[in-house]
Amino acid sequence: MDTPAPIKLSLQPLPGFRDFYPAEHAVRTYIFETWRRVCRSYAFAEYDGPMLEPEELYVKKSGGELVGQLFNFVDKGKRAVALRPEMTPTVARMLAVRDRDYKKPVKWFSIASFFRYEKQQDGRLREFCQLNCDLFGDRSTGGEAELLSLAIDLFRAFGLTAEDFHLRVNDRGVWDDFLGARGIAPERRPDFLQIIDKLEREPRAVSEPKLAEFSVSWEELQAFLAEPAPSFGPLIAELEARGLREFVRFDATIVRGLAYYTGLVFEVFAPAHGRALAGGGRYDDLIATLTDGAVSQHAFGFAVGDVVLEKVLRAVPHTRARLEESVRAASALDAYGVIADEARRPEALGLFAQLRAAGLRLDYPLAAAKVGKQFQAAEAAGARYAVVIGAEWPQVKLKTLATRTEEACAAEEVLARLGR
Amino acid sequence: MDTPAPIKLSLQPLPGFRDFYPAEHAVRTYIFETWRRVCRSYAFAEYDGPMLEPEELYVKKSGGELVGQLFNFVDKGKRAVALRPEMTPTVARMLAVRDRDYKKPVKWFSIASFFRYEKQQDGRLREFCQLNCDLFGDRSTGGEAELLSLAIDLFRAFGLTAEDFHLRVNDRGVWDDFLGARGIAPERRPDFLQIIDKLEREPRAVSEPKLAEFSVSWEELQAFLAEPAPSFGPLIAELEARGLREFVRFDATIVRGLAYYTGLVFEVFAPAHGRALAGGGRYDDLIATLTDGAVSQHAFGFAVGDVVLEKVLRAVPHTRARLEESVRAASALDAYGVIADEARRPEALGLFAQLRAAGLRLDYPLAAAKVGKQFQAAEAAGARYAVVIGAEWPQVKLKTLATRTEEACAAEEVLARLGR
Repeated sequence: MDTPAPIKLSLQPLPGFRDFYPAEHAVRTYIFETWRRVCRSYAFAEYDGPMLEPEELYVKKSGGELVGQLFNFVDKGKRAVALRPEMTPTVARMLAVRDRDYKKPVKWFSIASFFRYEKQQDGRLREFCQLNCDLFGDRSTGGEAELLSLAIDLFRAFGLTAEDFHLRVNDRGVWDDFLGARGIAPERRPDFLQIIDKLEREPRAVSEPKLAEFSVSWEELQAFLAEPAPSFGPLIAELEARGLREFVRFDATIVRGLAYYTGLVFEVFAPAHGRALAGGGRYDDLIATLTDGAVSQHAFGFAVGDVVLEKVLRAVPHTRARLEESVRAASALDAYGVIADEARRPEALGLFAQLRAAGLRLDYPLAAAKVGKQFQAAEAAGARYAVVIGAEWPQVKLKTLATRTEEACAAEEVLARLGR
Repeated sequence: MDTPAPIKLSLQPLPGFRDFYPAEHAVRTYIFETWRRVCRSYAFAEYDGPMLEPEELYVKKSGGELVGQLFNFVDKGKRAVALRPEMTPTVARMLAVRDRDYKKPVKWFSIASFFRYEKQQDGRLREFCQLNCDLFGDRSTGGEAELLSLAIDLFRAFGLTAEDFHLRVNDRGVWDDFLGARGIAPERRPDFLQIIDKLEREPRAVSEPKLAEFSVSWEELQAFLAEPAPSFGPLIAELEARGLREFVRFDATIVRGLAYYTGLVFEVFAPAHGRALAGGGRYDDLIATLTDGAVSQHAFGFAVGDVVLEKVLRAVPHTRARLEESVRAASALDAYGVIADEARRPEALGLFAQLRAAGLRLDYPLAAAKVGKQFQAAEAAGARYAVVIGAEWPQVKLKTLATRTEEACAAEEVLARLGR
């Protein structure tokens, strides 16, 4: 980036926030459009909620893990509000309010921006985008398989394979059984799950004393983790039928951080990066919590972030090539209008308006310019054709820029020649 | 809306904020996609900026009209920040930082959310969406005509005609001449323009004393407004060439509220609603102000809001029909998979996965259900076809739901029969 020297820091975005210039925006569009296409093929319907929500939605209702990272403040009407740090409380709130209006199962997705005041490390951003997919009013294995399949196909759609990612799946129920057998009360279990959640990232010397507080020894834990996974047979059969068995592994250390999960939990893991690309789980109690019991509804969902996904897509050669092609295609023009005779500008503008109305992406010089310069602009813009208007009007020349071949045709035939 | 009684108010979005359930989201998507298609045909490139910006971007730099309406606060890092109330300062900041990287003219657009703490009246929202279109590095009449044409075509693309809207165009220069001739200093002129801006909405009894402070009588003002418009000849000729002359009127009372405008200003006006659908103007000094003179660049742009536009589209019968058809199409399924024999669920799941991978939008029952109920679900979802998998596998039945006609075919032929 070629930054002029005297510009002050305040012209940069806030730390952790991003400017999306056209090239970066095209990448975001490629990711969003791919997400949207796959979700729609699965018959999920798109929704969105407000960017700002009452702070209590995160503080009281949803476990509170994210409160320390909230962009929260008091608005001009004395309301305690927060920029949304995740979608789940919003979509649970929305479903609760209109629960009776929608036949179940409800399949919803959203693509939206979120805000967390994270420490500036590890490439973490303070404004990021997420795809959220949720299934309400269903507790079937078929429903869980449908959502896991969607999570897999969302990554396959970018060209990623089972070598690049897999799902790590678990059921929090296995820990309920483990802890129940040891007489550990339900209210202490979230703290225990935090230890399991960090097991992969923290050394034994950190985890072991924490386990001791629950009278669980390191050896006892390892023995439990080495046991065969509980029966996920019906779920596996559903995934096998879709040809997706190879993408799924069961792993008792996966519990996911958020307190509201109640059953099946999973993450999409990229082993080459050691990072999760997505995560989610069943949260059958959240809607009842939000509504003080007035509405109760089964819920199962996951979120995919844009930041780690883009890193992974750029690291794998063939997914990187696809991404770069999408950026190139987003900026390319169908045609560039060359005005070779300024006296014909009015006729040229009329023709260009017709071509654009037919859906062609067309640019042209806003003011008089030398013909050679106009062709340079056409090449620089990646235009497929130059439409040359000159003294021969109403005859025009059509030049295919890649092959430098040229043909003449009548102005009213241009659209048909350009294949529209 | 059928709201269960015991739900508390806190489950509703904050006042002035919106939940977009799928039906409302489909309307938003229809508007956004139409905007995007037209902007791309004009060779504008899409960008976006951060939702949160340093407060000083609005307080010190851009005239300050919107400061009283800011959602502003101090973040956890002691920064004074604000949710963006408009895009112009952000895009001017972005262009300034990378001015040297982009060949001029630069044609950029964005579709984004904005936040203003407005009084709850007149259907004004606190979170709303805007399309912003800007042209940088150009001061030609051709560039101004290009942007005005884009503003017109953005509304024609929804089916609106010259009966539904027109542009009211002016040049602030006419007021500079008027005020200069009366010896009124440049620093007092923004206050005078505020009077002109409100002339249409305020009664004479309010405006007249304000004018008197500038030693301008009511009669003197009316005489000036009755004078023929200054020469917009070249601009009119450009619009005439594009067949858009009928959409443009010149009106000296149009000055637009924002202080940073320097020359041509305009609004898109819907006479039947008495409301502006869009507004903008030339702001040639803003980039130099932001950069303390380090970068200077011509700039001309406008914004379209989503709220008034949707109201107008719903009020005009044929644009309402288009909007409703877009909502219907957004939710309709290509096919519904009917599993008539649960023993064939694995084969059905495999086939459905193939159909979805080919781009079809398909749903099916997540758990066993009676065949009649499955057909009801297919109808309710507006599916075009039912794909019936039963004991005859690998033969399947294809039912066209509108005509209730049915044909049998082999599973591997389904995709071809469905026209993919």
